[in-house]
Amino acid sequence: MSLVAVGSVGLDTVETPFGKVEEVIGGSAVYFSLAASLFTRIQIAANVGNDFPDRIWQLLAERGADLSGIKVIEDMPTFRWSGRYQGDMNEAETLRTELNVLALPPETPESYGGSPFVFLANMGADVQLATLQRLQGRYVFADTMNLWIETQRDLLLELMAKLHGLILNETEARMLTGETNLIKAGGALLDLGPRVVVIKKGEHGAFLFERSFHFALPAYPTAQVVDPTGAGDSFAGGFLGALADMGSLEPTALRRAMALGTVTASLTVEHFSTGGLEAADRKEVDRRFRELHEFVRL
Amino acid sequence: MSLVAVGSVGLDTVETPFGKVEEVIGGSAVYFSLAASLFTRIQIAANVGNDFPDRIWQLLAERGADLSGIKVIEDMPTFRWSGRYQGDMNEAETLRTELNVLALPPETPESYGGSPFVFLANMGADVQLATLQRLQGRYVFADTMNLWIETQRDLLLELMAKLHGLILNETEARMLTGETNLIKAGGALLDLGPRVVVIKKGEHGAFLFERSFHFALPAYPTAQVVDPTGAGDSFAGGFLGALADMGSLEPTALRRAMALGTVTASLTVEHFSTGGLEAADRKEVDRRFRELHEFVRL
Repeated sequence: MSLVAVGSVGLDTVETPFGKVEEVIGGSAVYFSLAASLFTRIQIAANVGNDFPDRIWQLLAERGADLSGIKVIEDMPTFRWSGRYQGDMNEAETLRTELNVLALPPETPESYGGSPFVFLANMGADVQLATLQRLQGRYVFADTMNLWIETQRDLLLELMAKLHGLILNETEARMLTGETNLIKAGGALLDLGPRVVVIKKGEHGAFLFERSFHFALPAYPTAQVVDPTGAGDSFAGGFLGALADMGSLEPTALRRAMALGTVTASLTVEHFSTGGLEAADRKEVDRRFRELHEFVRL
Repeated sequence: MSLVAVGSVGLDTVETPFGKVEEVIGGSAVYFSLAASLFTRIQIAANVGNDFPDRIWQLLAERGADLSGIKVIEDMPTFRWSGRYQGDMNEAETLRTELNVLALPPETPESYGGSPFVFLANMGADVQLATLQRLQGRYVFADTMNLWIETQRDLLLELMAKLHGLILNETEARMLTGETNLIKAGGALLDLGPRVVVIKKGEHGAFLFERSFHFALPAYPTAQVVDPTGAGDSFAGGFLGALADMGSLEPTALRRAMALGTVTASLTVEHFSTGGLEAADRKEVDRRFRELHEFVRL
């Protein structure tokens, strides 16, 4: 089944203990789509400036992606983000943000309306709600961040009641529910509407909460994390791409999708920017899936 | 097979977001032995003052423990520790320590010499090395802490070359190896001698490293962590108690022991002091084992 992704395209400047890169390819919709395109047909909607390299669109087209929702804003630059990771690299420190084309809401073509799976990447809950209205997706998943939890809590709660799934990190889960214990936070988030809640914990893996079962998975055991930028969106892309490919949200499919999202995220963190996702193929994904399966087999 | 534990008996004063308790039963040898006694015959060696309640010795005797290595120092008080946990409770803040009887090295009776499994709880590496000399254990496991990594690094490295297994937390693993990435740290610790390395990550579970395989397990999904004191020693007690019970260090046994250690630690953190371990039985352990198995089944 096909999958719509609405989010950002960006140029990132990132510093980690392993080096620094400037104005490299990034953005939630880009990481998500490159990840999802390993599993299913992806339809992307995002605004981009006239200064973004073509390479990624060519690669996504080769992987069967529908790019008709990529809108080039001719007289504006692409969104810029600059950040730094230190120590255990579990948290990014944002140094600078230039919204540029991100100030305009993304537009989704009519042809995207029939896609059963939808991912609303991290954007204001107001923009996510407006986007949701134009799409008829049966299985809508969304991400969010601390900024919207603080400034648009009511709209976010309105959105959550309409979502099938919410994907967020542990800090956001604690902030949104007021619960320190993540098992409690997961239950509290389910009470707010979504049928599926995924709490990402970076190097510590992820939890999935659903009414009928809970599931925990560690991160793929990579020995070299070079740059965590985009790991969360790559996880979401692998997770939803795999679900759309399987066309199911049964427990077995959700467990398998968690593992494929985990593996996809591991491809991202071993390289700066989208290098890992660009080089990857299903064979490498499947090899890592088997390794992860062995790593957690009780 | 039987299992010797050498460590501390203590009276703890602990404050967590869920309350405060004063001069309650604690100590590494106590948590470890209560946990291990759910699985196997345990032989305990520790110094205790004349002010420690008898209740625990009675319970351990009922569970078949050998207490001939418990030495009561008549004219000295028991070891005291006072600490506080805040926020996510992942790290204890030590407020006060009174060594008292802990200043004297523990003595192991001759009759403990034939036990194939040995656990040297957190003590100075000098004391651990001296204790090791008096025991003939084939499978000796040890714990350590930041203090000894800083002040007795050379002795600790000498000890590690003689150990079968090392059990430590993620902060200690990073400090001992200089590696931030825990997968790398696990490999580096294996290079220092032990055949088995377990890195405990608190609420995020634990890793096991062995030459032939790696294994990751999340914590048991408990919704109410009241007091993490003793969780690490309870994990070690469940882990080694289960291994001694199975009489094997094959991968299958190590995976199962990790799960039983995890379950045993969950019994501890849901109550102050040793309340959870005192009330527990194998039926509850087995119920939680099945739940954990389902929680991680990919």
